[in-house]
Amino acid sequence: MERVDIAIIGTGPAGVSAALTAANRNKSILLLGSRAMSEKVAKAHEIRNYPGLPSIRGEDLAAAFRKHLEQAGIGITEQRVGAVYAMGDYFALQLGAEMREAKAVILATGTVQANLLPGEKEWLGRGVSYCATCDAPLYRGKRAAVIGYSPREEAEAAFLSEVCSEVLYFPVYREETKLPESVRVIREKVNGIEKEGSMILRTAENLYSADGVFVLREAAPPDQLVPGLETEGPHVKVNRKMETNLPGVFACGDLAGTPYQYIKAAGEGNVAAISASMWLDKNRKEKGGDAE
Amino acid sequence: MERVDIAIIGTGPAGVSAALTAANRNKSILLLGSRAMSEKVAKAHEIRNYPGLPSIRGEDLAAAFRKHLEQAGIGITEQRVGAVYAMGDYFALQLGAEMREAKAVILATGTVQANLLPGEKEWLGRGVSYCATCDAPLYRGKRAAVIGYSPREEAEAAFLSEVCSEVLYFPVYREETKLPESVRVIREKVNGIEKEGSMILRTAENLYSADGVFVLREAAPPDQLVPGLETEGPHVKVNRKMETNLPGVFACGDLAGTPYQYIKAAGEGNVAAISASMWLDKNRKEKGGDAE
Repeated sequence: MERVDIAIIGTGPAGVSAALTAANRNKSILLLGSRAMSEKVAKAHEIRNYPGLPSIRGEDLAAAFRKHLEQAGIGITEQRVGAVYAMGDYFALQLGAEMREAKAVILATGTVQANLLPGEKEWLGRGVSYCATCDAPLYRGKRAAVIGYSPREEAEAAFLSEVCSEVLYFPVYREETKLPESVRVIREKVNGIEKEGSMILRTAENLYSADGVFVLREAAPPDQLVPGLETEGPHVKVNRKMETNLPGVFACGDLAGTPYQYIKAAGEGNVAAISASMWLDKNRKEKGGDAE
Repeated sequence: MERVDIAIIGTGPAGVSAALTAANRNKSILLLGSRAMSEKVAKAHEIRNYPGLPSIRGEDLAAAFRKHLEQAGIGITEQRVGAVYAMGDYFALQLGAEMREAKAVILATGTVQANLLPGEKEWLGRGVSYCATCDAPLYRGKRAAVIGYSPREEAEAAFLSEVCSEVLYFPVYREETKLPESVRVIREKVNGIEKEGSMILRTAENLYSADGVFVLREAAPPDQLVPGLETEGPHVKVNRKMETNLPGVFACGDLAGTPYQYIKAAGEGNVAAISASMWLDKNRKEKGGDAE
């Protein structure tokens, strides 16, 4: 299997900046995220403090990023990363049912906008899942509930409806849903996840039971994504080089802390890419035995 | 005297970004630096990793910064800062013979490109000066030597020639000089500054004596600029908030450490401006007595 130098997770300003700089440093990269770029960027009304692009609308900044990536010949792989595992010499990334390998990883997934649901962390991996593609086989012919934080998650619910006997979909947004008829849309706010034999979803109005619960957000909590990663509240702990506590894993952008600003995220993506490149060069030298 | 909220020293990507964000936060600012912007930016051939501005030439990026500042109504005060003194409640900035006041200071002066000359630090303030405007009166009717690191310093040498009886000018660059005839241009590399009664400049070829030696670079060493500032080699020591060891003093861009990258500097300028704004807001609350 092809092993890239650097996997970059996230296509907001931090991920885009990391990709551009890593490519400039002649590293092979795998850029994972939405081709529509960060929702947070695309939906911004007007950005006034991104130096060089005065009073730019969010969608125009997203378009400028997209164009820049295209000109640099960088493609986006539109797959959700289920987990990143440190394998010693390299990292294994779970993309749905597929695995990919990278020598270093840059996390640029943004922050989790929502607070975790009561019970979500407790039952994760024991009835709660963040990845429909990964865990759908566990619920073949069974009843699944999906809590979707954006319309982008509807594709996952539709996929589950092909595998499961029944799918309940709880949208955490106002937009109208576009789902197969077999998916039952329930417009009630889920206040907590419990387990009594099967999983139970509690809303103000009702209790719903399911065999499996999928909580689908743009960004999963970082320490769930990368086991062993040190966090500080919702953020990954980094130093000025954007190094995390795990060698070969770097973090940048909103995920790495406040202030939540586009230009700060872009700056940090650049630093993360340079730190990752230097780390790779140092490792290669040491392993190749041609260190001076 | 008008006391601004934030003085920002430097008009490279870090200083420009700090100014834009500070203005966005409704802070009054004093932006000090060259209207031609950072030489390092303006002279860059092509910048490929400033996200959103693909393959931009340095001069075009500098022009984009200038336009952005104009649109935001931010002016540049083109004066060299001789020193920044912490006065307790505020900071006093020495601009030539004039003083200005600010409640907080953001340093974005870039790094000192050259190494210090042997003897430079030893004799600073005792025969060596970084500021012609400040110290010219000391050498009225006397002999001054100027070591100029860029053509921009020629204006200082010309000014000195109106005050001093004789001016020797040692350009540390290849461009032709445009100086009054009274200034003696010496194209020899100064290898060290000594003192034996008068100051002595040692080149490979000769020894030159002078009453005062002016060493003029785009950026002065930061701990000379701000007494008491903690440094690490050529860089100011900062944390992730761009705070220095001195409360109310922030640093960003190349001055705050590697990598020397435009987008990294711009990102750090943003963080410094937000940290400075929050520091001012907190101080005002505490002093105003309306803390909650």
